[in-house]
Amino acid sequence: MTLCELGEEKLLAQILPSLTKGAGVVPATGDDCAVVRFRAAKDYLLLKTDCVVENVHFRPAVSATAVGWKAMMRTLSDFAAMSGVPEFALITLIVPGDTKMQWVRNLYRGLNRAAARFQVAMVGGETSATVGSAAVIVSAAGRVEPKRCVLRRGGKANDDLFVTGVLGGSTRKRHLNFVPRITEARWLTQHFKINAMIDLSDGLGADLPRMAAASRLSFKLEKDSLPLSRGCSIEQAIADGEDYELLFAITREQRDKLERAWKKKFPRLALTRIGSFRSKIESRNSKLPSGYVHFQQRR
Amino acid sequence: MTLCELGEEKLLAQILPSLTKGAGVVPATGDDCAVVRFRAAKDYLLLKTDCVVENVHFRPAVSATAVGWKAMMRTLSDFAAMSGVPEFALITLIVPGDTKMQWVRNLYRGLNRAAARFQVAMVGGETSATVGSAAVIVSAAGRVEPKRCVLRRGGKANDDLFVTGVLGGSTRKRHLNFVPRITEARWLTQHFKINAMIDLSDGLGADLPRMAAASRLSFKLEKDSLPLSRGCSIEQAIADGEDYELLFAITREQRDKLERAWKKKFPRLALTRIGSFRSKIESRNSKLPSGYVHFQQRR
Repeated sequence: MTLCELGEEKLLAQILPSLTKGAGVVPATGDDCAVVRFRAAKDYLLLKTDCVVENVHFRPAVSATAVGWKAMMRTLSDFAAMSGVPEFALITLIVPGDTKMQWVRNLYRGLNRAAARFQVAMVGGETSATVGSAAVIVSAAGRVEPKRCVLRRGGKANDDLFVTGVLGGSTRKRHLNFVPRITEARWLTQHFKINAMIDLSDGLGADLPRMAAASRLSFKLEKDSLPLSRGCSIEQAIADGEDYELLFAITREQRDKLERAWKKKFPRLALTRIGSFRSKIESRNSKLPSGYVHFQQRR
Repeated sequence: MTLCELGEEKLLAQILPSLTKGAGVVPATGDDCAVVRFRAAKDYLLLKTDCVVENVHFRPAVSATAVGWKAMMRTLSDFAAMSGVPEFALITLIVPGDTKMQWVRNLYRGLNRAAARFQVAMVGGETSATVGSAAVIVSAAGRVEPKRCVLRRGGKANDDLFVTGVLGGSTRKRHLNFVPRITEARWLTQHFKINAMIDLSDGLGADLPRMAAASRLSFKLEKDSLPLSRGCSIEQAIADGEDYELLFAITREQRDKLERAWKKKFPRLALTRIGSFRSKIESRNSKLPSGYVHFQQRR
């Protein structure tokens, strides 16, 4: 069987449980960042690596500055998902030997701008030649207070589900210049008890089932409530992906206070209730949905 | 200008100084690991990323288990260079979609074995498709006591230069199954004051001038003293690279004690004095040597 036939999710599901674990690792397998303890530090240490690959995550014609911005922000968005604060980043650059220096300089300009936006220090780099597509890998370390660390697995039955911003159509441009919702996530956990959270990188149709599965719950999605990007359909909002918005679960009791406080703090950014978590028993489908395909089948 | 014409060293020299830095970063630009402070932890946090790329660092025919071992150990060797203890690792796997699952499983077997050898926890993974060569990127985090953190820059004039093990010929097999000198480095800084250290990944001919440059010193290499791998010439010991042995600088006063204690602790591993650091003024060459080319010119 090849990787294409199996898919990334199943590959990681096969491999991750068998990996060597240690005493300092906080159980959060499959979450956006790894959560570990570092010596006697009170905060958890968060670790994350992500990559952008030419012809997969960006087309060769895209400006190198935009590629750099995207590479950094994809990794930082995973810190937002856990209410973490990214602090340090390392860059691995794998490019053909005939790559122009100007392209590399522009790439680093984009990486640098994105890092500076969140006061992330770029502390090292590694480069290698390759034959084929260019790849930029950003590895980052950061912190989160244990009480404010939000995992995918913490959702409760009857929790409200909220998303920030609008969904769909990101592939037209926004996937290259988005700003991860780090500020918003930090504000959320400062003022509210968030039960579960994820950033919408693969799209609601993949990421909502993922968060539900981690919480061992089902969900009810109110499709007509979805906040749509201009000109986008409900289907696009569910399936396009690369929104990099937050999806989170929070008890119903906090709903009114949350909506009022959000409007005051972030008047320009939508916050929309799109459904709720359900216990597995309440759900009509005995098997949890596992991706966008499922949504299509239900329609 | 292309990357091939410029070379990695000059590329990083151009780019690294311009990177965004923050308050928590300990100045160690160009060192093997990035050295940062994490919250109130007494130990420094060490961060490092490194990669192996098909057709560059390994041939397609090499077993995936060996590729995994090498990918992990390359990164861990940089912790040895700073007397650090690696603790956590993240894997990014970039492979063509038609890669066989068995290859991936074997790769992870090698990564896992190598991580387990030093009690490193593999805490996360990311995969992406690509067109072209496979690449395995290992990012690791670890720790070192500030007093035992050894940089490249700390060498003093008249320091003895020592190397562990034997040099040369690694490309025949050893580059795939080497064990980084983490245990040895930790022992060294527990018992001795080591002024500067580096792991020999690019070969003595590149790495010794690097350490000298970082320390703003020149060096005298006693070529006839070089510990040679079986069947290797002095030239190969200098130029082959991928030895992953330690090269370090230590004051002359500690020489006798070091040699005696080493023989007792590591009776099967050679420790060889190969020369000494010199002040720039003492040196005949006004310009510091910058790589193996220089050695060829002097011969």
